[in-house]
Order: sequence, then structure tokens, then C-alpha cells
Amino acid sequence: MNYFLRVLVVLFSLNTLHLMSQSDKVVLAIHGGAGTILKKNMTPEKEKAYHEKLTEALKAGYAVLQKGGTSLDAVEAAIVVMEDSPLFNAGKGSVFNSDGKNEMDAAIMDGSNLKAGAVAGVHTIKNPIKAARAVMEKSEHVMLIGDGAEKFAQEKKLEIVEPKYFYDEYRYQQYLKAKEQNKIEMDHTDSVKTKSKPDKHGTVGAVALDNFGNISAATSTGGMTNKKYGRVGDAPIIGAGTYANNNSCAVSCTGHGEYFIRAVVGHEIASLIEHKNLSVKEAAEKVILEKMVKMGGEGGVIVLDKKGNMAMPFNTEGMYRGYITSEGKVYTAIYKEGN
Amino acid sequence: MNYFLRVLVVLFSLNTLHLMSQSDKVVLAIHGGAGTILKKNMTPEKEKAYHEKLTEALKAGYAVLQKGGTSLDAVEAAIVVMEDSPLFNAGKGSVFNSDGKNEMDAAIMDGSNLKAGAVAGVHTIKNPIKAARAVMEKSEHVMLIGDGAEKFAQEKKLEIVEPKYFYDEYRYQQYLKAKEQNKIEMDHTDSVKTKSKPDKHGTVGAVALDNFGNISAATSTGGMTNKKYGRVGDAPIIGAGTYANNNSCAVSCTGHGEYFIRAVVGHEIASLIEHKNLSVKEAAEKVILEKMVKMGGEGGVIVLDKKGNMAMPFNTEGMYRGYITSEGKVYTAIYKEGN
Repeated sequence: MNYFLRVLVVLFSLNTLHLMSQSDKVVLAIHGGAGTILKKNMTPEKEKAYHEKLTEALKAGYAVLQKGGTSLDAVEAAIVVMEDSPLFNAGKGSVFNSDGKNEMDAAIMDGSNLKAGAVAGVHTIKNPIKAARAVMEKSEHVMLIGDGAEKFAQEKKLEIVEPKYFYDEYRYQQYLKAKEQNKIEMDHTDSVKTKSKPDKHGTVGAVALDNFGNISAATSTGGMTNKKYGRVGDAPIIGAGTYANNNSCAVSCTGHGEYFIRAVVGHEIASLIEHKNLSVKEAAEKVILEKMVKMGGEGGVIVLDKKGNMAMPFNTEGMYRGYITSEGKVYTAIYKEGN
Repeated sequence: MNYFLRVLVVLFSLNTLHLMSQSDKVVLAIHGGAGTILKKNMTPEKEKAYHEKLTEALKAGYAVLQKGGTSLDAVEAAIVVMEDSPLFNAGKGSVFNSDGKNEMDAAIMDGSNLKAGAVAGVHTIKNPIKAARAVMEKSEHVMLIGDGAEKFAQEKKLEIVEPKYFYDEYRYQQYLKAKEQNKIEMDHTDSVKTKSKPDKHGTVGAVALDNFGNISAATSTGGMTNKKYGRVGDAPIIGAGTYANNNSCAVSCTGHGEYFIRAVVGHEIASLIEHKNLSVKEAAEKVILEKMVKMGGEGGVIVLDKKGNMAMPFNTEGMYRGYITSEGKVYTAIYKEGN
């Protein structure tokens, strides 16, 4: 009875409906970063806030799909909700770099035509994911960086904000502590540890499948606390942190970006599906739970194919994550065991 | 007789020894950019200058390998020769962006351990490839961009030069013409044309195999004439323009970077070798002569595996290219037909 009660509480507290019918495929999956996220360091209020925000992001993307919108519109809508929240290391919640500045990267890719857009090293764009999409649709380029990307975003009338918009007392204290210890920290942080290896990860991401059978991927991040000025992680690298191709899958990564770049994680998962006929689950797990563990690359991934097959493996303690099915069933989770 | 004479002249003028024995494997291959390079627009002096500089780059890398140096040292040595020459769109010969500035990208990757380094959007570093290597070996990061990358290069005591070092009258006139016509130009340029599609490509690259059986890749570029400020092409994107993995191959690309990023060309060639058991030649040709042609992505690639198998397909009129074998035989060429 005790066990049964526990299960019930978990299910309801998470607003979760686990039991999917065969026809009820996943149409949108998101992550809000992977890392050393431990239940003992969480408050019920904070947990609730994460579950609610993940649910809000999923529903925002789902609403787009329900109206017959594209998977590209859906991933953007989901990312914007997370970028606008201080809970995640992207947009408003971005961490501080070694110069005490917020420096953001983002990318988006359309699996139906392999079009892609990315920005890196931007400081004043409220929603970097919108800038990435503008690069894809309104420039001849795929990737714009730094001041050039800012200038482009201004020309395209994207919302520009003052640096103080990104200021967050918690993130700033995180940065001061990391700077004091002269180490680079990945979000998510419960406390700054003195281990030599960074153990905290950030980034938000989304993958979606629309009614046209097309898939898309998007990723947005504030990078690593106290990262060197000008450092670019995997998020804006097409093939590494972000990749989508109708022939294989849509992928968004989160984790220690350097390892994800070196292993070209997004495209490697896609290649195992396309060239070795692995399932989404097999390919994602092979790369994240075997290859990345061997390399020492901590993090996780969300992968979706055009049949609605989905996997979200991670090799860290936790990953903020969730998905929504074609019938509107929502699942969100934080820890390894789920929930 | 006439035909025989022609063959002889071609062979000698190119300093070429075509006849390789089975044991005489390729240990270093380079490219100096692909594009609309037509014999009718070349002078014999200019042709000679290209062949000589390609040969010099090959010999510089070969000398490293002969002394028991690593493939990483060899690709760097070959690239530096080309970066220091005004003939190629990299380092000294870099084209001008839309702001009339030189803006360079470079990347290097070690196939033995998948370590990689890249810089993008740098303006004052004499040899961007050295900065890429320093990022790989002396930072915790894989990619640094813009002012952050410049600052890092200064800290690491790399040679910094005034912008006028990169000034070249020919390149500047190229830029002024492109700007006047409001179009983005890829190097190599014979004349600025009025076609809506850019048809000129730049970039230098090298792939090498050392005595330890390890392979490496490196790429360096000045990008596209009149490109938007902040634009990053495929060269510094690990998996796109530059990739190396002992399990598959080392790759360096040149061409219309946006297409090469979207197709993750370097890693796609590697995946076809690793996961589909294609030969170096089959994989390189499948991606460059089939996939990229279908997408409309002009350019070429050099690919080398750890057995010394090499391919250098391109889908443009020409590609400055060459290789050297373990026995020191040099081959260089410019046009489609060879030579």
C-alpha cells in the first residue's frame, strides 16, 4: 500500500502519464540540461518549478503542432519558454563567463531540407534561438558570431536587451566562486565543488515531429560558468550539439561541450541510424552511455525520428527533461530513476 | 609523338611522378582551395607559382614526417607555408569581409585521440592554424572565437601582426568589386562575375599520416570575399570542414562552407568508411560528387586513412592540390583533368 501510494504521488506530482499506446507517438521532447542534479539538494518547491516550466515548454511547442505548425516552429516555441526562464542556463538564466559577462550560443536545424542557422558569442539578444533561426532564413550563412551576429539581429529587428536583463544573483555568486577557485563550471550547480573536473552542465534543447512528417532540432545555451571569453561549445555546432535530418533523426545535446564537439555526437547518432540501421534508442545509448563515457564526456541527449521514436539517455546524475505525445500526454523528469 | 611530347612536358612542368608502387603510400595531401579555376585565365607564371608553393608546402610537411615527427606537426607545417603565401585565401592571402577586414578561421584535429582545436573570426594572428593548435593543447576548450581567441593567442605568445600584413591590392579590388555588386564571393577568383550564385572558393588544408600510424587534419581560411562580419564557414567546424579519426580517416574540405556545414561533410565521409565499410575513394566521391552536387554545394575535399589510401575529389572546375608519398614523390595539380 505504501509503495502503491508512493507511485501514485509520484505520478500525480509530476503530471505524468506514462502509459503510451502504440499509436501515441512522441511529437516533442525537450531537455533543460544534464549534470549532478541530486534529489537531496533539491527542495520540493524547486522541483515543482522545474516540472512546471518543462511542462509549459512542452505545451507551447505542442500548441504549435496542434495548429498544424511546423516542427521548426515547435522547437523554437519550446526553447523560447526555457530561454525566458531563469531556471535554465540559456537566455535569461545564462551563466557568467570569465569576464563576468553572459555569452550565449544557439542553433536550429530543419530536418526536411538540412537548412540550419546558428549564433555564438552573443550578449544582448533576448532569445538567441530566434537569432539562429533568422540566420537560417534571412542570411546566406549558417553561422554568425559575436558582434557580427548582434548587428545582424538588430537589422532583423530581434529583441535586444540590456546586459542587466541576464543578471541573476545566484548565477553571479556561482561565477564569483568558480573564478575564485579558477575553474570552469558547467551548470547545473548545487554547490561549487572543489573537484578538478567540472561536473555541472547547462543548455536547453528541443526536438519535434510535425504533421508533415518533418523533424527539427534546436539548442540554446549560456555555456559554462567562468568559461574563457570567446569559448564556443557544442550547442551552435551543426552536427555536434544540434542536428536534424528526416533520413535519420533530430538531436539536441547537453553536457561537456568540448567532448560533444570532438565526438560529433549529433551526427554520429544520426549516422548509426542511417548507415548501421540502429534504432533511435540503440544509437543514442551507444554514443552517450558507451562512447562518451569512455571519452569522459558527461552529458545527455534527446533524439527523435520521424516515426515518433524517441530516446533521452544521459550519463550524469540527472537531466531536466520531458516529452509530449501526439495525444497530448506529458512526461517530465529530473533524476536518473525518473521523476 | 605530339601526344607523347605533351605528356612529357606536363610531367616535367609539374615536377610530378605519377607512378606509385603499392608500398609507396601517400603520407601527406594538401589543398589550396577549389573553384572556377580555368586554364584560359591562368598565366604560365602563375601556374608555376602555385605548383611551386604547393610543392614547398608538401616538402615542409614531409620533412617533419621524415624526422619522425607527428602527423599533427606535419599538417601544421604544410599549412603554415600556405598561410604565409599571398597565393591562397588563408593567413596572409585572406580575402576581405563586408567591413573591409580580414577575418580568418582555422582548425586542427588529431585522429589518434580525437583532440581538436579551432579559432574563428580572428584578425591579427599571423598563423591562425598555430592558434587552433594552441587552443587544442593549451586550453580546456575546443573552439575560441573573435576577441577572446585573439586574447588567448597573445597570452600564448603567438605572432600577432598589424592588419596591413594581410593587405593585398588584388584581394582588396576583389572585395570592392564584390561589395559594389552586393554579393558574397568565394575565392578563387579570376574575375568577379555577375552570376547570382557565388562561384569562388578558398581555404587551405592538409591531411597527414605519420610513422606511428596516426592521422591528422588541418584547415585554414580567410572565408568569402564580402562575407558578412562574423560569418563562420565550415573550416573551423569539427566534423564539417575538418575531421580526423584513426578509425576512419582525416579530412579537410574547401568550398561553399554553408553547404559543407549542413552536410557535416568531414564526419559523413568518416561515417561511410567506419559504418558502411566504404573505401576512402568511394566515401569521398559519394559525398562530394553525389550528395554535395545534389545539394548545390560546390567544393572539394582531401581524405587520407591510416593505410595511406587517399582521395581528393572536387565538383568544381579546379582545385589546387597535391600529395607526397612515403618515398618522397610529389604530385601537384590545379585543373580537373589534372595538371
